[in-house]
Amino acid sequence: MTRPDPAAGCAFCRIAAGTAPARLIAGTGATLTFLPLRPVHPGHVLVAPRRHVRDIWEADEETAAAVGAEVLRVAHAVRAAHRPDGLNVIQSSGAAATQTVPHLHVHLVPRFEGDRMPHLWPEEAETDPQTLDDSVRRIRAALPAPTP
Amino acid sequence: MTRPDPAAGCAFCRIAAGTAPARLIAGTGATLTFLPLRPVHPGHVLVAPRRHVRDIWEADEETAAAVGAEVLRVAHAVRAAHRPDGLNVIQSSGAAATQTVPHLHVHLVPRFEGDRMPHLWPEEAETDPQTLDDSVRRIRAALPAPTP
Repeated sequence: MTRPDPAAGCAFCRIAAGTAPARLIAGTGATLTFLPLRPVHPGHVLVAPRRHVRDIWEADEETAAAVGAEVLRVAHAVRAAHRPDGLNVIQSSGAAATQTVPHLHVHLVPRFEGDRMPHLWPEEAETDPQTLDDSVRRIRAALPAPTP
Repeated sequence: MTRPDPAAGCAFCRIAAGTAPARLIAGTGATLTFLPLRPVHPGHVLVAPRRHVRDIWEADEETAAAVGAEVLRVAHAVRAAHRPDGLNVIQSSGAAATQTVPHLHVHLVPRFEGDRMPHLWPEEAETDPQTLDDSVRRIRAALPAPTP
């Protein structure tokens, strides 16, 4: 018995393989930059690794670094091309975080005063000191060792 | 005449200098990870460079790489500590993008079904082919050369 291939039928793997159309912006050895199917507005682009990696938790350091470097490069081009008032860089892992294509990708969304993006943040916050101190302790205890 | 120091009075520079309190999670040579003043819910953390860099467009490659590597490391710890259903990684540059502290930082927001985060995306999209093809041409033309 073989395990099902998670890349089979993946929309972004098909773009990387050249078997599905996309508005391509750029490609590096490890990444592809292209327009999403439903851009919020012109200048909204995606940077994805060519390799099938589902989400941030599946990304190895090399893949993450290649995607990050390309995000930085494309951010300058988006600014030069569209002259936005700001930029959101958004990576969503998991359906609960709005990820719809289960192949890691980073959104670059140029922002313009009064554009159609919703406000990203809720009005309410968690302010209970004990809850927050407890969170800090738990995250600290769970931190992997830094790469040397 | 001297130019005003952009780091003077910066809330995150004060945290990096140890002159303002914060709930610290971790520090590396180049980065600090800490809780925002108003976390959406437990597990919401920020990763920032120690150096004062205003936004993604001011970040050099080394700073961006250090922040990116730490985001990846902290993402695993946030998942282990809080067992979320998903994760949003959000970097906002400029007030129009909801940046409030003008010192580069990346939000890690663990997501839970039914949590208080608003939906991040608008219902409408830009679908005019000519507008999108024109955007692709402009961004391509503006791309800096890749780092060798």
